[in-house]
Amino acid sequence: MDYRFSEKFIDLKPSAIREIFKSLGTPGSISFAAGNPSPESFPVSDMKRIADEIFENEPVTALQYGITEGYTPLRRLVSERLKRVYNIGTPDDDLIIVTGGQQGIELTCKVMCNEGDVVLCEDPSFIGALNAFRSLGAKLVGVPLEGDGIDVTALEEALKNNPRAKFLYTIPTFQNPAGITTSLEKRRAVLGLAKKYDILILEDNPYGDLRFTGEDVATYKSLDTEGRVLYCGSFSKVLSAGMRIGFLCANKALITKIVVAKQVEDVHTNVLFQMICAKYIEQCDLETHIAEIRKLYRHKAGLMLSALEKYMPPEVSFTRPEGGIFLWCSLPEGLSLGEFVKRAGEKNVFVVPGTAFSPDPEAPNRSFRLNYSMPSDGEIERGIKILADIAKDMLKR
Amino acid sequence: MDYRFSEKFIDLKPSAIREIFKSLGTPGSISFAAGNPSPESFPVSDMKRIADEIFENEPVTALQYGITEGYTPLRRLVSERLKRVYNIGTPDDDLIIVTGGQQGIELTCKVMCNEGDVVLCEDPSFIGALNAFRSLGAKLVGVPLEGDGIDVTALEEALKNNPRAKFLYTIPTFQNPAGITTSLEKRRAVLGLAKKYDILILEDNPYGDLRFTGEDVATYKSLDTEGRVLYCGSFSKVLSAGMRIGFLCANKALITKIVVAKQVEDVHTNVLFQMICAKYIEQCDLETHIAEIRKLYRHKAGLMLSALEKYMPPEVSFTRPEGGIFLWCSLPEGLSLGEFVKRAGEKNVFVVPGTAFSPDPEAPNRSFRLNYSMPSDGEIERGIKILADIAKDMLKR
Repeated sequence: MDYRFSEKFIDLKPSAIREIFKSLGTPGSISFAAGNPSPESFPVSDMKRIADEIFENEPVTALQYGITEGYTPLRRLVSERLKRVYNIGTPDDDLIIVTGGQQGIELTCKVMCNEGDVVLCEDPSFIGALNAFRSLGAKLVGVPLEGDGIDVTALEEALKNNPRAKFLYTIPTFQNPAGITTSLEKRRAVLGLAKKYDILILEDNPYGDLRFTGEDVATYKSLDTEGRVLYCGSFSKVLSAGMRIGFLCANKALITKIVVAKQVEDVHTNVLFQMICAKYIEQCDLETHIAEIRKLYRHKAGLMLSALEKYMPPEVSFTRPEGGIFLWCSLPEGLSLGEFVKRAGEKNVFVVPGTAFSPDPEAPNRSFRLNYSMPSDGEIERGIKILADIAKDMLKR
Repeated sequence: MDYRFSEKFIDLKPSAIREIFKSLGTPGSISFAAGNPSPESFPVSDMKRIADEIFENEPVTALQYGITEGYTPLRRLVSERLKRVYNIGTPDDDLIIVTGGQQGIELTCKVMCNEGDVVLCEDPSFIGALNAFRSLGAKLVGVPLEGDGIDVTALEEALKNNPRAKFLYTIPTFQNPAGITTSLEKRRAVLGLAKKYDILILEDNPYGDLRFTGEDVATYKSLDTEGRVLYCGSFSKVLSAGMRIGFLCANKALITKIVVAKQVEDVHTNVLFQMICAKYIEQCDLETHIAEIRKLYRHKAGLMLSALEKYMPPEVSFTRPEGGIFLWCSLPEGLSLGEFVKRAGEKNVFVVPGTAFSPDPEAPNRSFRLNYSMPSDGEIERGIKILADIAKDMLKR
């Protein structure tokens, strides 16, 4: 039979990245396409021991329905850590556990936006968020990303032109896909614009813990004095991605609505992993564990940057992330991104073309995203050489 | 600051049941309000052993990102069981793992309904589903539920009056809240109407495995030859509610869209529990485990029915479920449901008023839901006596 889908879903496509992810079975292939944390970052033996203890001592709590807001000890521990590490959280704030940061992003749009309302975002930005906004009928308006964060002048222009703007979605720290960190000056300017044009800011910070060089920059949430910022975080990049535990910290009035929205999506996040997270924080040393991951990614990012410097023709530019798991390469004018990505795939090297991250996938694009957390050291060296050879070959013509 | 929420969320309230659930701390209180499975139904030691094996042998699969469709071995095992037990599944069907049945319900509405489209539902029906539909801007049209299922004449009337009807949401087996099972004749008639008026049927069957008396009735999905039925199931009532594992089986074209919708909500369902489910089905005897739960609920339902017969004045009517975890009581005309529920609460006995389950919460209501899976044997006896005494006292006036 013919199905009459909702208008918002007729044209919505699955994430290009997750589709690539599915087809990565080829032996010998090198993937720079994933957004996955390194498996070395999973504290397997601690989790195993903690899961065992929970099944032994508190099985009913882990296996019975929980409350939508999340497992109370975890909410308290996450709030305490946010305060301690990021100076986030005021007496007017509350925190909800969500099924991965993705759900926090989607729920924020769901409770704030009517169909046709505008979400401002960096261009490029995280495809999962962009698709979530699209799936809810929001209109995406992209604002160019510069080396030190969003283009503030263009942002004000966009705010002037879009009176239905409800919030700015931003990944200010080790941005996905660009690896860029927004400067403190720009964060202050953006907050000023948010106030002037009365919009909210959804600050997505899944990589914030993964700084491996440079100095921390204050989060939007810690700079916010008005309840204008929703802060979305996640354990996906520091404990496990498969466990789907994220959190959203914002003004109580916002969290109250988000609880209702979450209740109708999945009732609550799976309890066992909330308990594992809480007990991991209580019993183990999360900060030392994170320091180990930073060390690992410092090494891998360093390898990738060295290989890019060594092999890549100077016409190809790339960002130098201070943390996180991605960097962003741009081909020079005249080279076709489509051809480059296709030829890389033929050599079994996978990257994600910039079009996937654009609020306007039809716009011209010459950039692609590279991930360094998943490939091995050898793969990084070999893969970048292959990409460089393709770029050189294309430049010859 | 003042927040401008989306129109759909301005008035949406949290589920009355989950709010009651949160306030159930009072020692000595008796709750017939929950929708929770009995903790005795959790196969704790098998799960503990299986989790341990997974952490030992396949930790990276469990802790890394998975694919949106779900853990492949679990999808296969669930499909096989659906075919074997319910004769569900055709070569045109596919199956997705969702974060509890709740997500399957919400995603179906999300991909099918534009704002203002109509969802038909039984009156009364599951509050979680009704709120999900409301949260997406769908219009609810309730159709009265009779002793043998939905009122077919009223359903046709509703279909005639609502050309924007997209699907019928139904819990045909051991309905929540009413405990009623729709007869085979009515299922055939409803399928005929669905065809005549070209709507889909979302068959929600979280309790179908829990028949403790009487004969199985064919599912809508197994009677469907056109791809008109989406079948939503769950492990919440047979393995664990806290693990949030459900599934949706439907025509491939529908599942393809639902995968996209799920991807933007939570990327995928937590992998460890998908693996635990799969290995439980492979290694243990799920059917014997379910037979034990049926025995337990047969006993508890029997106790509650006996207590109702023994204590309740004949003016109060109640349903006689053949499975599941709920029954439905109705006060006689003239008695106030609000007063009854309030007085019960004052005696520390909690029931959910029928208003919570109505597509129109403002409509007059004299019914309430009783759950027998959670209270102990003694609580069932004592609690029903307290409720009966209140009803008798109210009848005296």
